Amino acid sequence: MGTGSGTRVPIPDNKPFVTTLKANLKETFFPDDPFRRLKKQPLQRKLLLGLQYFVPIFEWAPRYTFKLFRADLIAGVTIASLAIPQGISYANLATLPPLIGLYSSLVPPLVYAMMGSSRDLAIGTVAVASLLFTDILGKVVSPTDNPTEYLHLAFTATFFAGLIQASLGLLRLGFIVDLLSHATIVGFMGGVATNVCFQQFKGILGLQHFTHKSDIISVLKAIFSQTHLWRWQPAILGCGFLFYMVLARFYSKRKPIYFWISAMAPLTSVILGSLIVYLTHAEKHGIQVIGHLKKGLNPPSYRDLAFGSPHLTTAIKTGAITGIIALAEGVAVGRSFALVKNYHIDGNKEMLAFGLMNIVGSTTSCYLTSGIFSKTAVNFNAGCQTVVSNIIMSIGVMLTLLFLIPFFSVTPLVVLSSIIMNAMLGLIKYEQVIHLWKVDKFDFVICICSYVGVVFGSVENGLITAVCLSVVRLLLVVARPKTLVLGNIPNTTSYRSIQHYDFAQRVSGILILQIDGPINFACTNYLRERIMRWVDEEEDRIKSCGEKSLQYVILDLGAVGSIDTSGISLMEEVQKFIERKGIKLILANPGSEVIKKIHLSNSIKTFGEEHIHLTVAEAVKACTFVVQVDV
Amino acid sequence: MGTGSGTRVPIPDNKPFVTTLKANLKETFFPDDPFRRLKKQPLQRKLLLGLQYFVPIFEWAPRYTFKLFRADLIAGVTIASLAIPQGISYANLATLPPLIGLYSSLVPPLVYAMMGSSRDLAIGTVAVASLLFTDILGKVVSPTDNPTEYLHLAFTATFFAGLIQASLGLLRLGFIVDLLSHATIVGFMGGVATNVCFQQFKGILGLQHFTHKSDIISVLKAIFSQTHLWRWQPAILGCGFLFYMVLARFYSKRKPIYFWISAMAPLTSVILGSLIVYLTHAEKHGIQVIGHLKKGLNPPSYRDLAFGSPHLTTAIKTGAITGIIALAEGVAVGRSFALVKNYHIDGNKEMLAFGLMNIVGSTTSCYLTSGIFSKTAVNFNAGCQTVVSNIIMSIGVMLTLLFLIPFFSVTPLVVLSSIIMNAMLGLIKYEQVIHLWKVDKFDFVICICSYVGVVFGSVENGLITAVCLSVVRLLLVVARPKTLVLGNIPNTTSYRSIQHYDFAQRVSGILILQIDGPINFACTNYLRERIMRWVDEEEDRIKSCGEKSLQYVILDLGAVGSIDTSGISLMEEVQKFIERKGIKLILANPGSEVIKKIHLSNSIKTFGEEHIHLTVAEAVKACTFVVQVDV
Repeated sequence: MGTGSGTRVPIPDNKPFVTTLKANLKETFFPDDPFRRLKKQPLQRKLLLGLQYFVPIFEWAPRYTFKLFRADLIAGVTIASLAIPQGISYANLATLPPLIGLYSSLVPPLVYAMMGSSRDLAIGTVAVASLLFTDILGKVVSPTDNPTEYLHLAFTATFFAGLIQASLGLLRLGFIVDLLSHATIVGFMGGVATNVCFQQFKGILGLQHFTHKSDIISVLKAIFSQTHLWRWQPAILGCGFLFYMVLARFYSKRKPIYFWISAMAPLTSVILGSLIVYLTHAEKHGIQVIGHLKKGLNPPSYRDLAFGSPHLTTAIKTGAITGIIALAEGVAVGRSFALVKNYHIDGNKEMLAFGLMNIVGSTTSCYLTSGIFSKTAVNFNAGCQTVVSNIIMSIGVMLTLLFLIPFFSVTPLVVLSSIIMNAMLGLIKYEQVIHLWKVDKFDFVICICSYVGVVFGSVENGLITAVCLSVVRLLLVVARPKTLVLGNIPNTTSYRSIQHYDFAQRVSGILILQIDGPINFACTNYLRERIMRWVDEEEDRIKSCGEKSLQYVILDLGAVGSIDTSGISLMEEVQKFIERKGIKLILANPGSEVIKKIHLSNSIKTFGEEHIHLTVAEAVKACTFVVQVDV
Repeated sequence: MGTGSGTRVPIPDNKPFVTTLKANLKETFFPDDPFRRLKKQPLQRKLLLGLQYFVPIFEWAPRYTFKLFRADLIAGVTIASLAIPQGISYANLATLPPLIGLYSSLVPPLVYAMMGSSRDLAIGTVAVASLLFTDILGKVVSPTDNPTEYLHLAFTATFFAGLIQASLGLLRLGFIVDLLSHATIVGFMGGVATNVCFQQFKGILGLQHFTHKSDIISVLKAIFSQTHLWRWQPAILGCGFLFYMVLARFYSKRKPIYFWISAMAPLTSVILGSLIVYLTHAEKHGIQVIGHLKKGLNPPSYRDLAFGSPHLTTAIKTGAITGIIALAEGVAVGRSFALVKNYHIDGNKEMLAFGLMNIVGSTTSCYLTSGIFSKTAVNFNAGCQTVVSNIIMSIGVMLTLLFLIPFFSVTPLVVLSSIIMNAMLGLIKYEQVIHLWKVDKFDFVICICSYVGVVFGSVENGLITAVCLSVVRLLLVVARPKTLVLGNIPNTTSYRSIQHYDFAQRVSGILILQIDGPINFACTNYLRERIMRWVDEEEDRIKSCGEKSLQYVILDLGAVGSIDTSGISLMEEVQKFIERKGIKLILANPGSEVIKKIHLSNSIKTFGEEHIHLTVAEAVKACTFVVQVDV
């Protein structure tokens, strides 16, 4: 034995514990090594770069030009025209006063403009989070009976959402947001959108009383139990505006140059609707209107944070759920547009920006804000260049609050319902669901569970189901690594799965197995059973076709990225099991961690250093050489 | 371009959904394909084989010989001598009447003898589960104030433990037990053993009142708050017997042929202790004794199962925790000895056997039993050949219950304390903890957390902490796959990590990255950051040393066993990011799942079929060929 020539697999040096720990922590929490640029710089420059890192406005402001400003101005005005009706509508969805929605489009975008690293993201209130406020907070405090307490709890929830977002960013725990996979979010958003759409029938049918539950069955019951109270006036108005906005959206989608048609549609609807009410006095004929609104900018609200409230835990829960969802959406949106324009977005830094924006917001009468897809897309199409477009939008909202606000007192609620419905229809992404089905059935199941959970259960149920399923999927990946039988690709030294490459050829007398994933305590029992079965089956096969008997089992460990102590014990057990059958175990292509742990646990003697090879080809060569000598 | 010759990576056929689902379910739940032997057999033989599969006694009984019986008889008598004192002691630990401990060594071993597949496992009550009964059940019902209710709840908990064990086996959910990793169990057992040892000072110091809490601080407080009640008589007796048993154990460990010295030590101690009490009337001088015991076999207890009890949920919880722990221990013990004798143990089948044994036990006045390491080791050393040794043990206990039981009424409690303490000392496996530290630091942390949680908190806290940590570890493995830079091993076509193989050489103008694990939604953000950083760093490096600029990035996907839709999106994003830098992305060695999903999501066009190669070597060849032509 020991004739296997070729390269020896080196055993990595045993580095000091602290060094390894430091390296591992860095890889886990700082994959992007954010302070890389700061290295080897003088202290002053280090401070400047550090400041620019945390507050990006210092980086780009000195280079800001008039040309950029012109582009940002146009984009800013466009998104302001979208922000005003959306602000009012989403506040309505969160059962908060309409002014809170406008306030929320004023302060947070300014904070984001200082701290954010995206150039395209448009900040504002988000539909899903708004609904969640009604859904979770509304369960403990009625927004109609106790509007002040509800409002204060909403500020508190926003504060905690911001706190959690900022902490996740500071502690580099962005991977918690990663647990909301794309499939989960598609299903979740679709489910929320479906629910919200049905809830809008309240406004469109002019109903006064409605259920506080959000599941589809309660909502449908509420709609159809009051058919005698349905009114035709708001229905016609609502359907008309909805039709107009959907049409505008489809047209703009086809011809992106006319993006402003779709972008202006909500504001046009609000103006048209208000004019109709103003001229026809429709408020006296069953059309509900927003009612009196107070002029003026955001009042401070830091005294309203209800830290002593008996419902504080609910506020924290609302903050945590909405904060994480808003983060997931906002970061994803920012990232997609950054990819199109090819600049880099730092997820952890974005979280910090979002968090600060919401903390500041909660003290200035704003509720939860994030980056929104629809507004960002409009911003992008309008040619925005930097976050200055958010500042312009902010100024637009400010002017509205100071001068134009009385005009909105006659805006009919039904227009807001149409605006929300139109936005929601864009959130149901059936093509993506089809794509999931085609590419990955498990992702599809996660998506559907998330959707069904939200639509028929509650928002939390849907989310928890989907996250649990996602985690189970992850655990299944580690608990059930695939094992593949390899064969030689003719005329090469490559060995590949004979199931995948049907022309790969088995090597007579040798069973080559590849373990296709990390080995850990959760999969050792499985792997033991599976490897034993492979060996038994191979022996049966050989017996039935009268080939040369099995003499070697080669384990290709190339795909085993990590292994734990249970994994090492497994390898020893497999070795014993195989040896008792008179078969020899050969290891091929162990990674640095595998060879290091085999060495540390002293089992390298069990396997024999001469039975560990760099490649499968070398292992096979060593085996066949011995086989020939034996003959 | 497109000059890359070599083997094309085939795209696997799109099999019907049901076929794939069936194959996946089979791989997940039936890795060992238990009914493989039944295939291609006539129906009658199928039925016989099926019966033999579920009730193994039918398989081996016809081949049972007198020679085997002789060996089993010796082993059986030896373990019976251990079973009697252990049964009484552990019942004491569970604060159950001593007779229940003996009953539990009578019926369950008989059931296991029918159903079990291990030839060495000795069945009996287990220390850890006994302690857990006191710990969890004792919190809701006091065993001293309401002994009958407590007893009935113990039967009920045993019933549910059996039910859960059997269900896990039937539903092929054995992998739930796998979540208790070896490291968790070492720490957990050590912690429980430490607590139990300290609790035995109650008996050894002859204390009457003691704390019901199990954490070390409460126990130490209870011991040292009553120093005035300490008695020297039991202390001397207890320490003497403990010293004798520990000595016997060490001696037997050194010379395994004298295993019986250690095996007989507990029974010798009980007999000696009882004789001393009987002759000196020590029960009147502060030595507590067991007291009157009723002759006779197990009374039926199916009417005592307290399904209507208000504490039913506690009983179910106790059953679930103890059942799973007992299962983990029992199956692990059976497996280790099977490995020594080279026969196969089917984990799922063992679970079924354990489950039935406990269900039957709960209806015949037994509490939880499992396979015990210490007894099994004695059984093995005594030369047992089949489970018949368990039957012999059962008969031994039966004879004791019928004729010898009055003798045990004078057995001093302090001897039982010494027996428990001696058993516990064997459960603290410090060498294994050192091994964990040496081989795998994370496993060490899990072990220590589990130990500290149990010793200072509660048994449940320790267990939950350890399981959560283990799961976090698994999630970290999938959330943070390693990325390695590969270099060419001189004079070969192999490419390996340049960090591991320091003689591997970078290929000029090409960055070769290997992703060392499955790609899924939890790691896409990480991989995106990390790959971008690798590319940036490589460009910096090239700039600083003036080499040829970067033209290709080769991704080696050989270790990517599975991928989901988020993973596919990631690959597309990386492709876009790299292309914008004027660099070309090449894929090498994709597995069947990866290439299939790339194909299904239509992104094969994005990558270009000619940019997907069988091996890194071929990819490099294709790149360098183009580079040369370009020049």
